[in-house]
Amino acid sequence: MSFQVVRTSHAEYFVTDLSRARAFYVDTLGFVLTSEDEEHLYLRGLEDRVHHNLVLTLADHAGAGHVGFRVASPADLDELETLAQHQGLFHQRVRDNTEFGVGDALRVQDPFGFPIEFFYETRAVPWMLQAYDAYHGAAVMRLDHVNYLTPDIGACAAWYQEKLQFQLSEYTVSVENGRDRLWGAWLRRKQTSHDLAIANGAGPRFHHASFIAESQATLLRVADILAAKGAVNHIERGPGRHGTTNAFFLYLRDPDGNRIELFTGDYLAVEPDWQPVRWDLNDPRRATFWGAEAPSRWFNEAMNVYHWDTGEAMAVRAATLPDRPDSVD
Amino acid sequence: MSFQVVRTSHAEYFVTDLSRARAFYVDTLGFVLTSEDEEHLYLRGLEDRVHHNLVLTLADHAGAGHVGFRVASPADLDELETLAQHQGLFHQRVRDNTEFGVGDALRVQDPFGFPIEFFYETRAVPWMLQAYDAYHGAAVMRLDHVNYLTPDIGACAAWYQEKLQFQLSEYTVSVENGRDRLWGAWLRRKQTSHDLAIANGAGPRFHHASFIAESQATLLRVADILAAKGAVNHIERGPGRHGTTNAFFLYLRDPDGNRIELFTGDYLAVEPDWQPVRWDLNDPRRATFWGAEAPSRWFNEAMNVYHWDTGEAMAVRAATLPDRPDSVD
Amino acid sequence: MSFQVVRTSHAEYFVTDLSRARAFYVDTLGFVLTSEDEEHLYLRGLEDRVHHNLVLTLADHAGAGHVGFRVASPADLDELETLAQHQGLFHQRVRDNTEFGVGDALRVQDPFGFPIEFFYETRAVPWMLQAYDAYHGAAVMRLDHVNYLTPDIGACAAWYQEKLQFQLSEYTVSVENGRDRLWGAWLRRKQTSHDLAIANGAGPRFHHASFIAESQATLLRVADILAAKGAVNHIERGPGRHGTTNAFFLYLRDPDGNRIELFTGDYLAVEPDWQPVRWDLNDPRRATFWGAEAPSRWFNEAMNVYHWDTGEAMAVRAATLPDRPDSVD
Amino acid sequence: MSFQVVRTSHAEYFVTDLSRARAFYVDTLGFVLTSEDEEHLYLRGLEDRVHHNLVLTLADHAGAGHVGFRVASPADLDELETLAQHQGLFHQRVRDNTEFGVGDALRVQDPFGFPIEFFYETRAVPWMLQAYDAYHGAAVMRLDHVNYLTPDIGACAAWYQEKLQFQLSEYTVSVENGRDRLWGAWLRRKQTSHDLAIANGAGPRFHHASFIAESQATLLRVADILAAKGAVNHIERGPGRHGTTNAFFLYLRDPDGNRIELFTGDYLAVEPDWQPVRWDLNDPRRATFWGAEAPSRWFNEAMNVYHWDTGEAMAVRAATLPDRPDSVD
Ligand SMILES: [Ca+2]
Ligand SMILES: [Fe+2]
Ligand SMILES: [Fe+2]
Ligand SMILES: [Fe+2]
Ligand SMILES: [Fe+2]
Repeated sequence: MSFQVVRTSHAEYFVTDLSRARAFYVDTLGFVLTSEDEEHLYLRGLEDRVHHNLVLTLADHAGAGHVGFRVASPADLDELETLAQHQGLFHQRVRDNTEFGVGDALRVQDPFGFPIEFFYETRAVPWMLQAYDAYHGAAVMRLDHVNYLTPDIGACAAWYQEKLQFQLSEYTVSVENGRDRLWGAWLRRKQTSHDLAIANGAGPRFHHASFIAESQATLLRVADILAAKGAVNHIERGPGRHGTTNAFFLYLRDPDGNRIELFTGDYLAVEPDWQPVRWDLNDPRRATFWGAEAPSRWFNEAMNVYHWDTGEAMAVRAATLPDRPDSVD
Repeated sequence: MSFQVVRTSHAEYFVTDLSRARAFYVDTLGFVLTSEDEEHLYLRGLEDRVHHNLVLTLADHAGAGHVGFRVASPADLDELETLAQHQGLFHQRVRDNTEFGVGDALRVQDPFGFPIEFFYETRAVPWMLQAYDAYHGAAVMRLDHVNYLTPDIGACAAWYQEKLQFQLSEYTVSVENGRDRLWGAWLRRKQTSHDLAIANGAGPRFHHASFIAESQATLLRVADILAAKGAVNHIERGPGRHGTTNAFFLYLRDPDGNRIELFTGDYLAVEPDWQPVRWDLNDPRRATFWGAEAPSRWFNEAMNVYHWDTGEAMAVRAATLPDRPDSVD
Repeated sequence: MSFQVVRTSHAEYFVTDLSRARAFYVDTLGFVLTSEDEEHLYLRGLEDRVHHNLVLTLADHAGAGHVGFRVASPADLDELETLAQHQGLFHQRVRDNTEFGVGDALRVQDPFGFPIEFFYETRAVPWMLQAYDAYHGAAVMRLDHVNYLTPDIGACAAWYQEKLQFQLSEYTVSVENGRDRLWGAWLRRKQTSHDLAIANGAGPRFHHASFIAESQATLLRVADILAAKGAVNHIERGPGRHGTTNAFFLYLRDPDGNRIELFTGDYLAVEPDWQPVRWDLNDPRRATFWGAEAPSRWFNEAMNVYHWDTGEAMAVRAATLPDRPDSVD
Repeated sequence: MSFQVVRTSHAEYFVTDLSRARAFYVDTLGFVLTSEDEEHLYLRGLEDRVHHNLVLTLADHAGAGHVGFRVASPADLDELETLAQHQGLFHQRVRDNTEFGVGDALRVQDPFGFPIEFFYETRAVPWMLQAYDAYHGAAVMRLDHVNYLTPDIGACAAWYQEKLQFQLSEYTVSVENGRDRLWGAWLRRKQTSHDLAIANGAGPRFHHASFIAESQATLLRVADILAAKGAVNHIERGPGRHGTTNAFFLYLRDPDGNRIELFTGDYLAVEPDWQPVRWDLNDPRRATFWGAEAPSRWFNEAMNVYHWDTGEAMAVRAATLPDRPDSVD
């Protein structure tokens, strides 16, 4: 098969109040509002040339909708449909604008329960990169990656590498009796540290979507702004530097409790002979390079994911490996 | 005499269109609008506890109004009045709110033709320092200093030191026949590099008022924003680092052609035995530490100043010393 | 009395290994080494015009030596000696270079047990402000303040205000039965947020000396460097922004366990009618503006102080007020 | 043909004094020295996983050696050899370590006179990305792009697109009688704004190689350091922001007069339907977004390139189009 997944391109979150969500994502964080209707906000970053990198869909609950992967050509959808058939996965072709701003698409429930979507076409939007008068908040530039939790970490990481040609940038292992067991995988299609991180944990659950902030300074500024607005409780973890990927991060909860990450400063991964970076789960510099622990709720809580067909929340199975470092409660 | 000038506290500029000025100073640069009336905008910085650091007064011409120096106590005004009398200077006591937001004041035309004002009281305003949701543009924090041009550089610098107890932080000399002649003086009352810079040139003219930007990054961002708005012509010089004072700078022209500087990163000058720093006018690192020349219009053009009593522009006399480095046209 | 304390000018720490301390303070953090002898390292910042802002003295234990306050003129020492006499405090005049690089000095044990020193003269040193090839690490610029712990918070804050003319910039209160009880005081002589912070706690103990980092970016970079060197355990708290003072901070432990703070971005406090800022001990934004808790060891541990005369550690009395927010263990 | 050029991977410069060059590139700018011999310095960036991004070769003159393009697999060299044969270009296969640290390579003189090289293998080196104790100067991260001058701008840009599958990110046109004539092309293989810029001018000449600085702040810091070292004359243009590519830049001359650019903050170019950005040569924001002109010597001067076979400088032909904006002398 010869399709190419280009990148992770958008995520969908469920929110219970669109105007409250708009205040958070657009006014405070600095997303660009591409368009909206009564049930959706379509958001993008200042650097984006796609219609949206985040769809907020009105619902009666929080949670993660789906992840949209962009492919290199319309014909790739056929190839991917064949793959889904062979794998016996739920899949469905949908027409242009079934999701507003997105062309013909292929919806698939992956083998681990995550609802994903492939598409090529996207509605043209103005490039805001040099519209500096529109920069504010963290100055969100683009979607960087999404993060899954699954008890099937080994199989799931293998599937995205073998079937969708993701490449392994970094990985974390839990060492048991001197043997490495895969605990987390940072997988890329575009030439940065990752498009998809998969971590061991109860799942299928969606941990976060991560968006590029313009700079360290704007990422820090968002924490200042949230505090200034009396919204300190939206700040969950950080700011800090990750050991894995090397990026600066800040984890936030939106007004519905959905988690996003702001992220900046990882690296280009261009070399054809890339050797993946190995981290021990208990390395104090792994999660936060400076040694601070993530709070336990960062490990405990994550978003449900839903079935494309039924709309029902996927059943969550417990992790079999330890789901956090020894030092975290 | 025992008065204390605390700092340079505000400047007044004449503008011909208040709404255009507001768009520039408030929307683009990031000043806080304290209040306004039909003939004035009263602006301050995010760090200010005074009512305004810049008054924009509607007029039929551009130009500099006056400079307001804050003193340490109301009684200081009497001491300063005595000084003005002894010196035979035009002076006038004005009541509370003659300038809105300012208490009783003493207006003086200094011996070199500059209209200045002393006051103690100022109307209380909210401190915006941690109102990070209000930060934008350069995030103007406070007034730093004003800059005069005068052919009487030696006498003028001496007067501010001897009569008003300003202290010399740095100075520039023009070397003639191996002898230093004072070309410029950086004088302070508050504990930073300066409150008042005086340079040799045709005068009395007002070169610029200088305002603190939050950071290097916000100072640079304002240049981005001006370019994004198609207002590149407002950028006159910089961004760059000064040799004198060590600060990052950006010189801008407002829509009427008045010049302001954005400034950040000089130093604290606290030590009681401070030794002034000497610079040669022709040192390539003096004006811009990185060696770039200021454009000739930065030397040629400046704002008129006016007489407190008559409102007429002060006659401008030519400089007798060279008014710029040899390398500038 | 007419003396003027200009600023907190230096601190002394005891260390057990000078070469290990030099690697930490000079190589990693970016202090400038002014001079050294077999028992001392004399360090300063890149912006300093004083001989040292930190003396590291070889000892068989960690701990805080004394705090040096600079005064405005040599005659101020006589005035302060009279004050010490009237107050019945241990005091001692010492000659030029008793502490290397410092002129004649007056040593005093303050009423709360802290060993302090007043001096005017200091040996001239090159100003490194524009020696950018020497900047590294956090690029330490100058001493900002020191922080005391004492059970006598009310009396101690009052003494520094009434006897030494410190001014109150901000304060924290513990609210009991609807009444404010002073919990901490941020006191200044120079025109920044503070020279001396005093907090309620078991004492007399010395919590930290705080040094200005060149920028947010260099402060963050020191955390990166410590992690890169495998010295993550030196990072105790932060980086973050303080609510009180608004500054960015990072608390570190030196190789002997002494605590220092790196600090940047508070404000100028120049106005003669400054109204102190009030904070509630339990305000989640007070200590870290973004809401993160300080670790409990930051509250539990502090450095001993010693008597000028006997060299013995001062006895520590417990605090009577709560010594930390309710939310910290 | 199915080869893939991965990226522009290294450049070679001639220098007349290796120790002087080392002081400039390694000590001042912050390149990592991978290895050296009597005739070469092999430099790389902190983010590099290749042996070098710049080779400095001892010679009796300054100038540009060659440009090294990395390919995706060893077999790509055969494909490229066939291409060179078909095109009638000078080409030569060289063995492992003919250039130290580089595997088997194919050397080609391109149709426009530029000496280029293709290779797959490179000697493993430690990844310095998190070795923050080694960061200094501008903290050079990796090679970004190289810049050619040629009178054959149209044909040259077409060749790299059609034969080597470079993609057009942005382009500049000179408008004549209402018609666009291509003046410059920004071409990419990796997913950033470019790997190769080609501009109209007398040529073949090499204008600069451009290296990523860690941040705006480190790029600015290098200007400070050069000034501190009395080497202001190494600063040729900037710092500023480019209109084209949006990146921050600083152009420097090395001690032999070779030109490099430091560069940071362009964008990811990932989308499969990328629409190239068009700029008018006379747009005041094109070269420097803030409107400042490049100095005329930046247009006038460039490095010779040499023939792989004879080692002789390629003859330079004049440009037929205007080689700079109307506003530059
Ligand atoms: Ca508790
Ligand atoms: Fe979608
Ligand atoms: Fe006034
Ligand atoms: Fe001392
Ligand atoms: Fe090569």
